[in-house]
Amino acid sequence: MSSSVPNSDRKIVTGPAGYILEDVPHFTDDFPDHPTYPNPLQDNAAYSVVKQYFVDEDDTVPQKIVVHPDSPRGTHFRRAGPRQRVYFEPDDVLACIVTCGGLCPGLNTVIREIVCGLSYMYGVKRILGIDGGYRGFYARNTIHLDLKTVNDIHRSGGTILGTSRGGHDTTKIVDSIQDRGINQVYIIGGDGSQKGAAAIFKEIKKRGLKVAVAGIPKTIDNDIPIIDRSFGFDTAVEEAQRAINAAHVEATSFENGIGLVKLMGRYSGFIAMYATLASRDVDCCLIPESPFFLEGPGGLFEFIDKRLKESGHMVIVIAEGAGQDLLAESMEESTTLKDASGNKLLQDIGLWISQRIKDHFAKKMTLTLKYIDPTYMIRAIPSNASDNVCCTLLAQSAVHGVMAGYNGFTVGLVNGRHTYIPFYRITEKQNKVVITDRMWARLLSSTNQPSFMKQDKIHSNQLVGEPGTMKW
Amino acid sequence: MSSSVPNSDRKIVTGPAGYILEDVPHFTDDFPDHPTYPNPLQDNAAYSVVKQYFVDEDDTVPQKIVVHPDSPRGTHFRRAGPRQRVYFEPDDVLACIVTCGGLCPGLNTVIREIVCGLSYMYGVKRILGIDGGYRGFYARNTIHLDLKTVNDIHRSGGTILGTSRGGHDTTKIVDSIQDRGINQVYIIGGDGSQKGAAAIFKEIKKRGLKVAVAGIPKTIDNDIPIIDRSFGFDTAVEEAQRAINAAHVEATSFENGIGLVKLMGRYSGFIAMYATLASRDVDCCLIPESPFFLEGPGGLFEFIDKRLKESGHMVIVIAEGAGQDLLAESMEESTTLKDASGNKLLQDIGLWISQRIKDHFAKKMTLTLKYIDPTYMIRAIPSNASDNVCCTLLAQSAVHGVMAGYNGFTVGLVNGRHTYIPFYRITEKQNKVVITDRMWARLLSSTNQPSFMKQDKIHSNQLVGEPGTMKW
Amino acid sequence: MSSSVPNSDRKIVTGPAGYILEDVPHFTDDFPDHPTYPNPLQDNAAYSVVKQYFVDEDDTVPQKIVVHPDSPRGTHFRRAGPRQRVYFEPDDVLACIVTCGGLCPGLNTVIREIVCGLSYMYGVKRILGIDGGYRGFYARNTIHLDLKTVNDIHRSGGTILGTSRGGHDTTKIVDSIQDRGINQVYIIGGDGSQKGAAAIFKEIKKRGLKVAVAGIPKTIDNDIPIIDRSFGFDTAVEEAQRAINAAHVEATSFENGIGLVKLMGRYSGFIAMYATLASRDVDCCLIPESPFFLEGPGGLFEFIDKRLKESGHMVIVIAEGAGQDLLAESMEESTTLKDASGNKLLQDIGLWISQRIKDHFAKKMTLTLKYIDPTYMIRAIPSNASDNVCCTLLAQSAVHGVMAGYNGFTVGLVNGRHTYIPFYRITEKQNKVVITDRMWARLLSSTNQPSFMKQDKIHSNQLVGEPGTMKW
Amino acid sequence: MSSSVPNSDRKIVTGPAGYILEDVPHFTDDFPDHPTYPNPLQDNAAYSVVKQYFVDEDDTVPQKIVVHPDSPRGTHFRRAGPRQRVYFEPDDVLACIVTCGGLCPGLNTVIREIVCGLSYMYGVKRILGIDGGYRGFYARNTIHLDLKTVNDIHRSGGTILGTSRGGHDTTKIVDSIQDRGINQVYIIGGDGSQKGAAAIFKEIKKRGLKVAVAGIPKTIDNDIPIIDRSFGFDTAVEEAQRAINAAHVEATSFENGIGLVKLMGRYSGFIAMYATLASRDVDCCLIPESPFFLEGPGGLFEFIDKRLKESGHMVIVIAEGAGQDLLAESMEESTTLKDASGNKLLQDIGLWISQRIKDHFAKKMTLTLKYIDPTYMIRAIPSNASDNVCCTLLAQSAVHGVMAGYNGFTVGLVNGRHTYIPFYRITEKQNKVVITDRMWARLLSSTNQPSFMKQDKIHSNQLVGEPGTMKW
Repeated sequence: MSSSVPNSDRKIVTGPAGYILEDVPHFTDDFPDHPTYPNPLQDNAAYSVVKQYFVDEDDTVPQKIVVHPDSPRGTHFRRAGPRQRVYFEPDDVLACIVTCGGLCPGLNTVIREIVCGLSYMYGVKRILGIDGGYRGFYARNTIHLDLKTVNDIHRSGGTILGTSRGGHDTTKIVDSIQDRGINQVYIIGGDGSQKGAAAIFKEIKKRGLKVAVAGIPKTIDNDIPIIDRSFGFDTAVEEAQRAINAAHVEATSFENGIGLVKLMGRYSGFIAMYATLASRDVDCCLIPESPFFLEGPGGLFEFIDKRLKESGHMVIVIAEGAGQDLLAESMEESTTLKDASGNKLLQDIGLWISQRIKDHFAKKMTLTLKYIDPTYMIRAIPSNASDNVCCTLLAQSAVHGVMAGYNGFTVGLVNGRHTYIPFYRITEKQNKVVITDRMWARLLSSTNQPSFMKQDKIHSNQLVGEPGTMKW
Repeated sequence: MSSSVPNSDRKIVTGPAGYILEDVPHFTDDFPDHPTYPNPLQDNAAYSVVKQYFVDEDDTVPQKIVVHPDSPRGTHFRRAGPRQRVYFEPDDVLACIVTCGGLCPGLNTVIREIVCGLSYMYGVKRILGIDGGYRGFYARNTIHLDLKTVNDIHRSGGTILGTSRGGHDTTKIVDSIQDRGINQVYIIGGDGSQKGAAAIFKEIKKRGLKVAVAGIPKTIDNDIPIIDRSFGFDTAVEEAQRAINAAHVEATSFENGIGLVKLMGRYSGFIAMYATLASRDVDCCLIPESPFFLEGPGGLFEFIDKRLKESGHMVIVIAEGAGQDLLAESMEESTTLKDASGNKLLQDIGLWISQRIKDHFAKKMTLTLKYIDPTYMIRAIPSNASDNVCCTLLAQSAVHGVMAGYNGFTVGLVNGRHTYIPFYRITEKQNKVVITDRMWARLLSSTNQPSFMKQDKIHSNQLVGEPGTMKW
Repeated sequence: MSSSVPNSDRKIVTGPAGYILEDVPHFTDDFPDHPTYPNPLQDNAAYSVVKQYFVDEDDTVPQKIVVHPDSPRGTHFRRAGPRQRVYFEPDDVLACIVTCGGLCPGLNTVIREIVCGLSYMYGVKRILGIDGGYRGFYARNTIHLDLKTVNDIHRSGGTILGTSRGGHDTTKIVDSIQDRGINQVYIIGGDGSQKGAAAIFKEIKKRGLKVAVAGIPKTIDNDIPIIDRSFGFDTAVEEAQRAINAAHVEATSFENGIGLVKLMGRYSGFIAMYATLASRDVDCCLIPESPFFLEGPGGLFEFIDKRLKESGHMVIVIAEGAGQDLLAESMEESTTLKDASGNKLLQDIGLWISQRIKDHFAKKMTLTLKYIDPTYMIRAIPSNASDNVCCTLLAQSAVHGVMAGYNGFTVGLVNGRHTYIPFYRITEKQNKVVITDRMWARLLSSTNQPSFMKQDKIHSNQLVGEPGTMKW
Repeated sequence: MSSSVPNSDRKIVTGPAGYILEDVPHFTDDFPDHPTYPNPLQDNAAYSVVKQYFVDEDDTVPQKIVVHPDSPRGTHFRRAGPRQRVYFEPDDVLACIVTCGGLCPGLNTVIREIVCGLSYMYGVKRILGIDGGYRGFYARNTIHLDLKTVNDIHRSGGTILGTSRGGHDTTKIVDSIQDRGINQVYIIGGDGSQKGAAAIFKEIKKRGLKVAVAGIPKTIDNDIPIIDRSFGFDTAVEEAQRAINAAHVEATSFENGIGLVKLMGRYSGFIAMYATLASRDVDCCLIPESPFFLEGPGGLFEFIDKRLKESGHMVIVIAEGAGQDLLAESMEESTTLKDASGNKLLQDIGLWISQRIKDHFAKKMTLTLKYIDPTYMIRAIPSNASDNVCCTLLAQSAVHGVMAGYNGFTVGLVNGRHTYIPFYRITEKQNKVVITDRMWARLLSSTNQPSFMKQDKIHSNQLVGEPGTMKW
């Protein structure tokens, strides 16, 4: 049908009218004669009436769907879902699940649904949980997982497996996988963890092991590229409304009241942006992608002054990664703040900017600023209904993909469809709010805040990139 | 670029590789020399830095995005969004907004955002609310709407404009539009109301009026075709969890406890299906699309008996439109139930089936059935954050489209992008759960309920139709 | 100090200035030489610093606390709490817990805290749960309860022990208690169940067994006399707000919209009354204690007509036991409704009155009535923080009382203090809303509804009774 | 009946058996011939059927209700409620309402219900809101309040009147009262504000004005003595559960995870104590009343070490006023922290102790500490149903008292009954958790935390005081 251009690591397939498929690795790449078995779902009563159940081998999903009548068809990804034949016998499977990085609503639902998917759909009986993130592979005992263990876990926030940052030692991890006889590895984590997954996959490939590695992208910040949204994001935006409401009440109850809310978003301001758009009470939203300055014409202080004079109160939402350049500058100047404890505290942009605002206006006007940091209260809640469905389908897609012999892939929603995406595509850069795109314009229009930019400062590189996710 | 095949009422444009655009009417169809003006957004500070702000005239969005390398490109819709030039001078605009049919979370947000969009983005000053649905055009006074009036309405459920069913008298409505000098009509309503909108548009066209008519589809049941999801659906699924949780608690606290929850869904079972998938506590989900029977092998009673014996309790979710055939049969047989009051009550499938279950098991076992109907508690809540953003963007898309001269269209999310869809496409049939599609298979797998069908009963026509919406 | 007047079953102690103590039975009544032991709490690190920890033998709490300078001191109850000496050795204790009747928020918290109280405070190790209410004593296996089993149960509604109505067979139950060697019985249930507890206590006394029986009153309706409020009531009133809010939204969104909410309250309207007072959106509150009629001057229909004309919408709250006289009359008249299924359905006052209102206004005006029955959604939720603390202290009071040798008592809050109350005092009559008292007047003033009474109908007996509970 | 012993400022009435009434001032103290009028409630349809409506002049409520058969009757307060005769003609009334100090759930409900009470019950038409606390009397315009203005305000947190700290200038305030012709002053505020109210009352008395001053005690910390609980406290404890739940999830998801939650409570730890008791997830609760230390045997670090080793995670709740002695010491030692910004930040005990814990364990073990400060998210929410009823009745009691000629009083729940309390009784000291009382012992037992005290350190003065409020 079409020609494949094998890049060293990449499987690129091209077709007519500019069609490109960025395919994911498959067991048959290394083991062309790997045995296959009929998919057990064929005998499942629930599926027996479903005519359209198995995914056609040729089904793919385009990355770009705003098209012109004659535009090239562009990049596609392989559609996720069950295949007619599988590459594992259920009794041979020893699967493991690991959660890495910070908390995110829905982790337990993903864990639960991988276990349920493997058990109910494919009859897999041996599933292990890795305790406490990557280092659990080599430094901890594993946790036995079955339908009973996971039955109610989706009602709780956090992760029953425990999590941690770091601890990624590829050799030790793959040793452990090999020694324990694990042949399916499900890795739930952010972009760092997905890079880790890629390294594990590479090492496994190098050692010639028949082990499948699948990633389920986890980022409450929604900063993973290509995919529409990550699980937990919807819940986070919803929960952030509480903090914004509180800030609004505090602001309106005091003379020159300012409510300042810090939300998650180290490198991308999606939560701040969507929480602002959903709330309608925010006067100013500051995100990492949009530089701002405090003093002088067009600066934040001027805008605060103006808004307080107009309406007597103000709500500011700031992503945790916003204004880090200002903070860094400030830290260098001020050596007195560099002691062990003070130093740490001031790296919080919310505390820092609260103090700067108070200091600036101290002599000018009575001002009451209330600072709210709901981060851990947002991260720790269970996922809402929408994210629950999202987590379920991600987990099922991952299980289907692994059983079908795909390997070294991440599952992800692309334009509303589940797909398998090669690791490199989601780790090579971060998803960011494109501040010259329409969504940010909508926000500016909604808050009536200034752009805090001079026209000449709008770097062309900010226009680059796929203004991809959440692109209504 | 491509050839247009003007159907009597339809604007079909074709292109290479099987590309089809189902376009919407435009002012220039009837008024080729209609004056245009620069879009006021060009002078808006918020937008001035946005390079990609205006939508390219050729931007379209495909309806079908699971594609093969060489499959035809298929049907597309015009992408929504602001255009370089507009067909109204702000001072000339007299817009009106009407809400029709049952309540749905987000109605007030849509009203609010049409008002804000017209005011902030385009400087429109005269906006009217029509009181109490279609009949308000001719039987009620209008309600003045401005930024202040609508500022807090999104925090409340319901609709500040009031609503009603029926009352659609095309002539009287268009007379009123003409008499009052209204030139933009925004109609928020379900498929019946969108048919009404189509009739109004047709009459306006016939009379040669320069009046734009735009529809914003409203259906808590998510039963409008083509579009991904309708606003309020997400909130409804979330809120339905409360009822399911309660049913679960009641069921597990009593011997042979059954919790039965009726959810919205006259003709389509999307809410029941998604609420079931999100909850994980449901043992059986009954929807209009999937016929079932009570007695005998493979019937509901047998399944209840089995499940109670297995686990001692059971949660059943039933969409209001499910089993109406059984109910109708039952009503014919039993004339004693046909008195004025009894008759009405028994049209509730939830009450009816509760009674049937109790009667059936009365002599066999002690059984405690609790019936929960949360319908009005779900409909009446304010929209959640996700639906708030959704409503905002729908409203803005409608306003952009009308200002840009498009007419006789509905706005809708297609594969995650906002588009303009001709009325006929969303009124010619209903969106339904395709029970031979994968999502329903997932549900069956999750509940382990029987299909309640004999193999020979699976009519081929159930396979027809685009298994379009919510298609993860 | 004072003279005791032993009634056959009652322990009445009198003192100066009209002081009366209605005391509860004690082990020493029948076993004067029962051995005692030092309270293990004396060695508990947590309590060792607490000087005022043990309750003074003479501590009592007055029932009536609105007093005149020279009024007699009146009835008192014994104060609950730990005593210096206990009548059980921890290792000898075999305790059991049973939950009876309908669900109520907090059941699991009470179970949990009895287990925790017995274990942590007194070192008791053997605790049984009785499965499914009274009949579980003789028809089911017991459930082992320990700290681990109960650790998280307070987060869920319902009761992990299961419950049922009826099943009270005194002989079989006491046989079971005797055969199993149980010597502490904790009974959580409503007034029927407390009567059962009294019967069990009487039989135990007759058989000369050294078994303690304590009741924890459970009634979501708050219809148990003497006590301030029962656990779960606060949660129920809170949760009822959702239904009232929904009714309000539905009512205000339609022409002549009526939202009708049925709340719990078979014989007493406390939930309806407090939910109405807390909400401020209710136009009419109908409770069992306040008779009303539908037709004619001063009737409900007239008031509905008036209120709809005034404000265009209306919210009605009705307790499930209200208007049962009207319903009974109606049922006699209409024989066609007396078939097996119809009959049952119509015993719901909410459905019945909805139909009556619709019928009455059918020819007079367009009216949209929405009926909401949130009963099971309220009953099944977990207790809120306030009720959690309430349940904890009730459970601890019960455990302290039993360990201290008191017997045949119910624990209850009297004027904010925990007390031990003889069974007969809480079962001899029901707590009711006194409609000639101030609280009901406050409600009438808040809703501006008519009294639905003719002056001559105010029976003097409605003035009788202690306008005791919730008497702010 | 009894003899009155007029203290300079105090009205003490004594009676038989040690009965004492601490009465409040009354118009007739200074104006013995002040005219009276029949209470308009006598003509109110809602009240006409209520026989027990008006409060008997002799009704009083005892402060201490745990009594012995022969104990003296002790202190009583006058019962609140409407009287047969009133001292104001409705048309002559010009009332004003002011809110002072920090936010507290329920402020708007109290404002609403004073307005409704004055209007509905007494026909008062002229009611002013004072803008932004005490200084609003002389530095701001007043806000007109009527039934329409206040109709929906109870649904929002904060105060529509605005509030502020300080600004109390007795002379200017009474000048303003006099100049504006205000004759009823309702002051909603904490103990500082109630002292202000006392000063205003004194000045008014001195000037011989016929102006009534009533206080409604507002303290989210529940630190006002005599009264059972202050409005908003219940809501605050409920909302605090979210933060504790989040802390629990964070703690259990990481190795040696610590979740630390700071709650309100400058001088008294009631919120921390009740939130801990309600939650059951807290391992350690630190309050101002219970001193603790960090290092060495029996210190906090030792306990953390022990608990982490036992269970691997830990939740700590700390009241904002706890450990201020440690903080003060630390600040003196460390001069580097004394710069303008750092200094301020570190006065937060939560941030400070988080840092100390991290520093202490830095070399010993990997430990993940998450600090949550939900203060403003708690303060700013609307009151729950229970507090709504509470606020309503407080407001009505205040209005009844003022109309009945009482003056210079605070309304408050005493043992579940509404009373009028002289200002001096609620301002002369603060309500505190008595750490040698039973409630604190319950908490210690629930958390199993050490007392952090040496036996010899338990000062006798900590035993002093009425262990009054919330004394279940």
